[in-house]
Amino acid sequence: MQFIIQRNRLISSVQHVMRAVSSRTTIPILTGIKIVADHDGITFTGSDSDVSIESFIPVEEDGDQLIEMKSPGGIVLNARFFGDIVKKLPMDTVEITTEDGRHVLIKSGKAEFHLNGFDPAEYPHLPQISNEDTFSIPSDLLKTMIRQTVFAVSTSEIRPILTGVKWEIKNGQLICVATDSHRLARKTSPVDVPQEVHYQTVIPGKSLLELSKILDDNDQQVSIVMTENQILFKSKNIHFYTRRLEGNYPDTSRLIPTDYKTNITLDGKLFNDAIDRASLLAREERNNVVKLISMGDHLLEISSNTPEIGHVSEEIPIESLEGEELTISFSAKYMMEALRAVDGTNIMISFTGAMRPFIIRSAEDPSILQLILPVRTA
Amino acid sequence: MQFIIQRNRLISSVQHVMRAVSSRTTIPILTGIKIVADHDGITFTGSDSDVSIESFIPVEEDGDQLIEMKSPGGIVLNARFFGDIVKKLPMDTVEITTEDGRHVLIKSGKAEFHLNGFDPAEYPHLPQISNEDTFSIPSDLLKTMIRQTVFAVSTSEIRPILTGVKWEIKNGQLICVATDSHRLARKTSPVDVPQEVHYQTVIPGKSLLELSKILDDNDQQVSIVMTENQILFKSKNIHFYTRRLEGNYPDTSRLIPTDYKTNITLDGKLFNDAIDRASLLAREERNNVVKLISMGDHLLEISSNTPEIGHVSEEIPIESLEGEELTISFSAKYMMEALRAVDGTNIMISFTGAMRPFIIRSAEDPSILQLILPVRTA
Repeated sequence: MQFIIQRNRLISSVQHVMRAVSSRTTIPILTGIKIVADHDGITFTGSDSDVSIESFIPVEEDGDQLIEMKSPGGIVLNARFFGDIVKKLPMDTVEITTEDGRHVLIKSGKAEFHLNGFDPAEYPHLPQISNEDTFSIPSDLLKTMIRQTVFAVSTSEIRPILTGVKWEIKNGQLICVATDSHRLARKTSPVDVPQEVHYQTVIPGKSLLELSKILDDNDQQVSIVMTENQILFKSKNIHFYTRRLEGNYPDTSRLIPTDYKTNITLDGKLFNDAIDRASLLAREERNNVVKLISMGDHLLEISSNTPEIGHVSEEIPIESLEGEELTISFSAKYMMEALRAVDGTNIMISFTGAMRPFIIRSAEDPSILQLILPVRTA
Repeated sequence: MQFIIQRNRLISSVQHVMRAVSSRTTIPILTGIKIVADHDGITFTGSDSDVSIESFIPVEEDGDQLIEMKSPGGIVLNARFFGDIVKKLPMDTVEITTEDGRHVLIKSGKAEFHLNGFDPAEYPHLPQISNEDTFSIPSDLLKTMIRQTVFAVSTSEIRPILTGVKWEIKNGQLICVATDSHRLARKTSPVDVPQEVHYQTVIPGKSLLELSKILDDNDQQVSIVMTENQILFKSKNIHFYTRRLEGNYPDTSRLIPTDYKTNITLDGKLFNDAIDRASLLAREERNNVVKLISMGDHLLEISSNTPEIGHVSEEIPIESLEGEELTISFSAKYMMEALRAVDGTNIMISFTGAMRPFIIRSAEDPSILQLILPVRTA
């Protein structure tokens, strides 16, 4: 194997596939990145037990020559060393040459690195995925859907299924739901599949976080292939494979109330900042609880009290309150994360009572819903 | 006590004095910031056993009113909570009012924080320092002197005296020296004291690091008062007290060679980058060692070898080599830190043999000297 490659493209591919490489693996070859060069281009692969990532660099793209391919071949190189080396090379191009099956020379300007490698034939095969159950969504929308739901997954392994986000295709819609059983995030988006298609899968939250870091912020389509065990995300030059979580995801539809006793409309930023301040004195105790009290149609009081430290209160104006007056306590952290996900200017919050879950929506975007369970206080 | 203050000035003073507050102290009142308001302005104080910091905000500065003083007084407030609160207040001004000797109301816009405090009479007194042994240097030069030496102090408590930087006044010069016994940094600067004045002190490296974060990057004079136990740095509105380290600082003058067998002049950045690359494969073993081999008058080879991982070599051009050819090994980390401290374009390195300390200087600035002990290699 011998080729000369543009260094910035090499850095970006190596950084992408490194996201799948774990330094704590017990399988030595999985600490490496597999590099396979053929006449079309070079494929880089990184993998651990949950996620595998392939990044492809074509020999030529949009008329630019990215690679000068001298002879095809392959090698597996330690991800950490290889990643550090390519970042610090002195010139804009790099020449990589296998010296025999197990060693490689990395040359840029006057700097020459000889690195030990593994035989690529020993690298585990990625799953073969046929193109059944495929649909596609734009890259930026996919990132948004992940951002608006993934933070609400459980971080506890007590119910492993809740560490994932449920993806369901139903009535031509993709519905993403995450819950840790104290709060829930749901995002819906139309997708281009026949109305009668219906299936669902649960994707590890960690995998989705890694995926969203790799995806571009543009409207290029990402195709998504769901199979029995794996989900494959395919963008232009990247294949991202993740396992799915096994088990039954709880039915969350009944959690979401359908009639409300109090509806409040208010400015999201104003509300968020007041919650943030009130939470400053609340974080030591009781999971960061703040209290909200309605004061007629145009004012809310946000407060918090930790006897050893002090107490805080603030009145903020609201646009409207419809229905009953209300006193309710909830986690400031959950509320701020929900507001960040909804990210609208005008926020609607709908309550059914001090001890019932309440929902937060954007007045501008009905596709996103956040639900929080209140906290019982004295 | 009651006053209204500009929030940005309050934030900056609180952040400065918080650098002296340790959350791990066993004395509860030292987790707080002392606030004392009189008709001239407000003094904030933070302290732990090593460092005390006072920051003063005058009622008026350069014709701007910074404080509206309603009544003088004092309180001690938990540093962490108070610091977080002032950062997140909604308006540009803050009103602070003691409600009785132990409680305070912090008000900004509609946000009201009631915070428990301590009686300021219970706060430990700072040392009384008379103005003996005073000299002054510009703030930016003081920062530079700290940056060019403090990184070389020992991080081990085996010889506590080496965790400090020796400051010596002699022949009208301030000489700062730090060493961890593997390398040494020395910076000299003329100061405005009589030629016959001679004294020295050892200042904890950690204190100097904190001081340099507070100092402004301008040429305002900082006066320095050295006493038996304490050193006081006085800038415009800040008093920074640190204890001195007790014990005898070793005589380092004999370490520095006076005659050399090989003198190399080269480009600092080119050299640093090559060392950085060579160290990539060296960090696992033997304290990050790279090897330098002279190749005639105009080339150096920098290399490193870790059998399990690989080896690297690079040739770099040099401006000149005078004297004997040379092969020497040293810590890449020490060399890169020394080059960063010298920060000149043209670097001179002077060797007296493969096993003798060598020195690194800037061709442009003779006031700074770095010394490194080589490493024995096979």
